[in-house]
Amino acid sequence: MVTIAVDAMGGDHAPDAIVEGAAQASLSSQVNLLLVGDQTVLRRLLARHPHHPDRIDIVHASAVVGMDAKPQEALRTHPDASILVATRLLESGQADALVSAGNTGACILAAAQHLSRIPGIRRTALAAVYPTERRHGPQGDPFALILDVGATLDATAEDLVRFALMGSAYAQVISRNPRPRVALLSNGEEAIKGSPEIVAAHARLSAHPQLNFMGNVEGVDIPRGTADVIVCNGFVGNIVLKMLEGMAEVVEEIARYAMERKVLWKVGMILLSRGISRVLELTDWEAYGGAPLLGFEKVVIKAHGRSGPRAMRNAIKVAAKAVRGNLCNEIAAGVRLLEASSDSSSGGSG
Amino acid sequence: MVTIAVDAMGGDHAPDAIVEGAAQASLSSQVNLLLVGDQTVLRRLLARHPHHPDRIDIVHASAVVGMDAKPQEALRTHPDASILVATRLLESGQADALVSAGNTGACILAAAQHLSRIPGIRRTALAAVYPTERRHGPQGDPFALILDVGATLDATAEDLVRFALMGSAYAQVISRNPRPRVALLSNGEEAIKGSPEIVAAHARLSAHPQLNFMGNVEGVDIPRGTADVIVCNGFVGNIVLKMLEGMAEVVEEIARYAMERKVLWKVGMILLSRGISRVLELTDWEAYGGAPLLGFEKVVIKAHGRSGPRAMRNAIKVAAKAVRGNLCNEIAAGVRLLEASSDSSSGGSG
Repeated sequence: MVTIAVDAMGGDHAPDAIVEGAAQASLSSQVNLLLVGDQTVLRRLLARHPHHPDRIDIVHASAVVGMDAKPQEALRTHPDASILVATRLLESGQADALVSAGNTGACILAAAQHLSRIPGIRRTALAAVYPTERRHGPQGDPFALILDVGATLDATAEDLVRFALMGSAYAQVISRNPRPRVALLSNGEEAIKGSPEIVAAHARLSAHPQLNFMGNVEGVDIPRGTADVIVCNGFVGNIVLKMLEGMAEVVEEIARYAMERKVLWKVGMILLSRGISRVLELTDWEAYGGAPLLGFEKVVIKAHGRSGPRAMRNAIKVAAKAVRGNLCNEIAAGVRLLEASSDSSSGGSG
Repeated sequence: MVTIAVDAMGGDHAPDAIVEGAAQASLSSQVNLLLVGDQTVLRRLLARHPHHPDRIDIVHASAVVGMDAKPQEALRTHPDASILVATRLLESGQADALVSAGNTGACILAAAQHLSRIPGIRRTALAAVYPTERRHGPQGDPFALILDVGATLDATAEDLVRFALMGSAYAQVISRNPRPRVALLSNGEEAIKGSPEIVAAHARLSAHPQLNFMGNVEGVDIPRGTADVIVCNGFVGNIVLKMLEGMAEVVEEIARYAMERKVLWKVGMILLSRGISRVLELTDWEAYGGAPLLGFEKVVIKAHGRSGPRAMRNAIKVAAKAVRGNLCNEIAAGVRLLEASSDSSSGGSG
């Protein structure tokens, strides 16, 4: 069975919401969970929620990295922080995957310190799942993937090509999309548009039969969902992702305002419920199960800091699916193919 | 009186909507308009709409740059294109400002070929006005300014500082905001976050008492409207702007779907009208009057390609306001102050 290390102390609503979500996951998913954190606290919280006792173990960690802590300093001064203890469970082979809703920078740094990168992957990428107008893949998933959203601010052409490959593998495994449409984010659709890195990545991806590369897309294609996987550097991806959150916040605000204000509006909201719910879907981060950190030999899922029990349950489910679908092996095989083809076509090392 | 050259042939709905908007502006604003384009067509169209005959003249131009034409090639092969003829009216001093809803690249290129840049401005910036949750300035304007959105893809620290200064001057003149809050768009609020250009621009702007610099903002602050003026390079700004358009499109789509579908929904929409109208405001580009192209010694307003008569009327109004408010002189004075202070503080040439 798949074993997942859960950083029980990370997140705005940790440890309560994390433990509750893990308890639910132990009943609904075929997984072993290692809840990492203060054992006294975790034992007490776990007792409060129905769970499968054979499928949850607690692993003690005495410290916590705060949500606003500086990652480098926090990890150095707290070697027993839950995120580090959890990551070391992957390093030692005791767990197959990590789920954390804690400090994003600390999660990325802990992974970088303790996990091996897949051969041929120089820089890792944090991918985010976000809702789109268009549906994706054979299951009609209402969301697409964008990467990198903050692990590698300044990506080279080679990095972007690998991000495309990793994002494609993730969509194949998680959305069961056999041939995800992959695109580069740029300031125009033509192959010559964008920074030198984007132009070079475009040329390489176009020559790559393994990927379903559709070319460049523009900002307008992000909410539309023109591509299944959008590739950009971490600086641009960070701004895009936070902008999506900001838009969701504004829509939520307006809906809440409408609900609170007037009986007539309330009636209007009820009559409109299906139409409105499509707008509100934009804000339903909890359904998407978190952001994969791609490029390591183990599965790492970064759940949203605001995760409640449902989001954690979904993040655990996605982590298990990624392990069962051999995500990391798929990526490794893709990189080998890529390097073999670029060796033979250009003589370069990739 | 202010004289404005209007590219009557540029835009998705040109020349009809352009002429109609100009006709309306001649009645509502104290401006002289020079309508540039095919004189036979323009005369016929103008006769159809009520207008002030003393305030509109037609200037003939025999060619048009198509919306999808390649700017460089189009301008070279069509020296008599309406956008070029209109721009030359500014060059020769016959007009104070230019308004065009045509091909954006051609408009920027024509300006670059025929207009002088303000001394000290190395690269120009296209600024876009976009709607925000928060209101701005003493009039409570529901929109903020972001620049550059596509004129200068790769901006240096010096360019970003000048964009900040130009955006601030524009908000002062157009929104009558005496001390606009200016921010750099980055991947975190700390001064050290972002590319080397952003970090260097942050340091310079922080040391600049003339500007109300609030530091870095993140993607989430764009729809919130945390800053009155957001500064970024043209690549990032292009993606942000098109993403805002894409979000507006999705909201519009959902609202239209709701309106068409069911009587009950229609009733709901009516009851909710004020709440919904706040969501739909996001899509109301027509109210904002176009995007200023900043850095030239004359006022250039690029109206949205989809502009109808109302958008054109507003773009003409904004152009007149910019001329009357001495926008270009304000920017020139700001640059002189900037260079004087950086000369004295760092010995550099700015």
